[in-house]
Amino acid sequence: MGRTGVQGRIVVFNAPYVSYGQTVMYRVNGPSRAAALGAVGVLVRSITPLAAQLPHTGELEYDPKQPKVPAAAISIEDASMLARLQAQGVPATVHFNMQARLEKPVVSANVIGELRGSEHPEQVVVVGGHIDSWDVGQGAQDDGSGIMAALAAVRLIRQSGLKPKRTIRLVFWVNEENGAAGGDAYLAALSPEDLHHHVAAIEMDGGAEQPVGWGYGPSAAPFHARPGQSANLPPPALSSGEAHSLEMLRDIGSLLKPIGASTIRQGGGGTDIDPLTKAGVPGLGEMTSAAHYFDWHHTVADTFDKINLSDFRKNIASMAVMTYILADMPETLTGHPGASED
Amino acid sequence: MGRTGVQGRIVVFNAPYVSYGQTVMYRVNGPSRAAALGAVGVLVRSITPLAAQLPHTGELEYDPKQPKVPAAAISIEDASMLARLQAQGVPATVHFNMQARLEKPVVSANVIGELRGSEHPEQVVVVGGHIDSWDVGQGAQDDGSGIMAALAAVRLIRQSGLKPKRTIRLVFWVNEENGAAGGDAYLAALSPEDLHHHVAAIEMDGGAEQPVGWGYGPSAAPFHARPGQSANLPPPALSSGEAHSLEMLRDIGSLLKPIGASTIRQGGGGTDIDPLTKAGVPGLGEMTSAAHYFDWHHTVADTFDKINLSDFRKNIASMAVMTYILADMPETLTGHPGASED
Repeated sequence: MGRTGVQGRIVVFNAPYVSYGQTVMYRVNGPSRAAALGAVGVLVRSITPLAAQLPHTGELEYDPKQPKVPAAAISIEDASMLARLQAQGVPATVHFNMQARLEKPVVSANVIGELRGSEHPEQVVVVGGHIDSWDVGQGAQDDGSGIMAALAAVRLIRQSGLKPKRTIRLVFWVNEENGAAGGDAYLAALSPEDLHHHVAAIEMDGGAEQPVGWGYGPSAAPFHARPGQSANLPPPALSSGEAHSLEMLRDIGSLLKPIGASTIRQGGGGTDIDPLTKAGVPGLGEMTSAAHYFDWHHTVADTFDKINLSDFRKNIASMAVMTYILADMPETLTGHPGASED
Repeated sequence: MGRTGVQGRIVVFNAPYVSYGQTVMYRVNGPSRAAALGAVGVLVRSITPLAAQLPHTGELEYDPKQPKVPAAAISIEDASMLARLQAQGVPATVHFNMQARLEKPVVSANVIGELRGSEHPEQVVVVGGHIDSWDVGQGAQDDGSGIMAALAAVRLIRQSGLKPKRTIRLVFWVNEENGAAGGDAYLAALSPEDLHHHVAAIEMDGGAEQPVGWGYGPSAAPFHARPGQSANLPPPALSSGEAHSLEMLRDIGSLLKPIGASTIRQGGGGTDIDPLTKAGVPGLGEMTSAAHYFDWHHTVADTFDKINLSDFRKNIASMAVMTYILADMPETLTGHPGASED
């Protein structure tokens, strides 16, 4: 932040982990809230259920009306220690020595490939994840597994000799972790007609653990709630069209019963497809058991060894089935006419 | 080790975790084995089931016939990376920059307190754990929880107004982690008559998770197997006296059923009471679920927040019941006459 030698009060957010969607607001919004009250720095207890002396990094969003105070994630253990000192009235002095800095934005690009539709190439099922990750680890779970499962799913469809009627567009979005500019740019590049022809947007961004099913947007993503959102908000009421789509998805989901991935529930999606779902495109986020995802998430421990190959293959299968069927079935979730009915 | 600028082959032990007792030999004996083959340094994959980019430290034992090469524990992730590079034929260069050093031994002391027996003060039930820990963390689980549970158990007996017939001797052993000199010194200080009057030795050194029961020595401790031992060896055949003792312990264990700690099995004990059990004193090691013990063990994450108070209280109860009954029952496990029969 370029601020050296600043002294003053540091605010420590020591909120116990409830869920990622619910607890992450302290990291995202806490720094500016604290700055508004005069804090010169902020420490945030890592957003994780696992105390293993690991700091978990992640996005924060500064309120432009407040001074940009330095903020850092600390381990659960260290946050607890500071809380104990505070409770005992013991003064604690913390020196911030941070290398983090915000560079000026540079031009980057989403990575896009297509399997062209055999009958309605103008109709598009988007499937993907995000290609960026936090640099502390490898981003193997978040979200290397998502883009690789999407790629493998599309390859599986092609290798099976299937020729889906609609176009399957594979997208590796950039900048999910720090502003979601890739998802915004994807939408911005679409003409109204292009957008109209987007029949579904599918994202895997919850790690490669055992898949359990799919969340159907457009309501908030459980894992990547944006600031101001909460995963615990009741899902919005469905229109009759959306209720019908949910039934269709349950039919598709039943195919995934053999691998334990048949649950379809309202709510879900993903940060990258969020702009699309807000513009009316049905969004589907892959759901997993998430038994350990937030143990590793945004840490040095998000490395390839955390990928269980058997689980990962099930993710690929789940992605392939959902993608292929949405690209090939007679009608669409949005009521687009299917190729066979044209 | 005072060796600077040494260059040569480094051996990496990348043994997957099977059990602590079984896998720890790579750390304990590996360095000298590698040195015998010309290695100038050794890296050992941490002895843990949890990959969380944490190195787990611990004892090693140098073979005096081999050069004392530097050895360090590395995370599972880093060991895996080195193994991948090796498998791919990619040369890897590792620079050791270690602050660890071995100081000359200094005089220290076991911490001992007693609740004198009301009828046979000369007969002793020893109960305790070890007061030292690895300095990377706090040693909250290993073995702060053990000594504090032992202390609390003895206090509980006293506060309950119970006057056990035999002496209960609380011992906080020193130097368990790096040579077990405290346990050796305890035995060495006993006269043959003192030793004869030791009717049981009880140790808690497996962490404060849910207690499940007790292991009855003298066979190898499951968690702290000494070099050359293996937790997977079949337990030695019991003498008829030992078999009778095991039955008596099962009777005592049945009292612990309400807290889920009634399992009595052959095999167990503890590093500190090992000299006593080898000298013929019945040894009892507290067994726990050990669900996460080796996730934290010998790391920066072995801190007080890892103690679950409900589980810890059950450990105290289990220690109190076992200690009190062995100190007060008519006969003893070793066939010493009880006070009521004198």
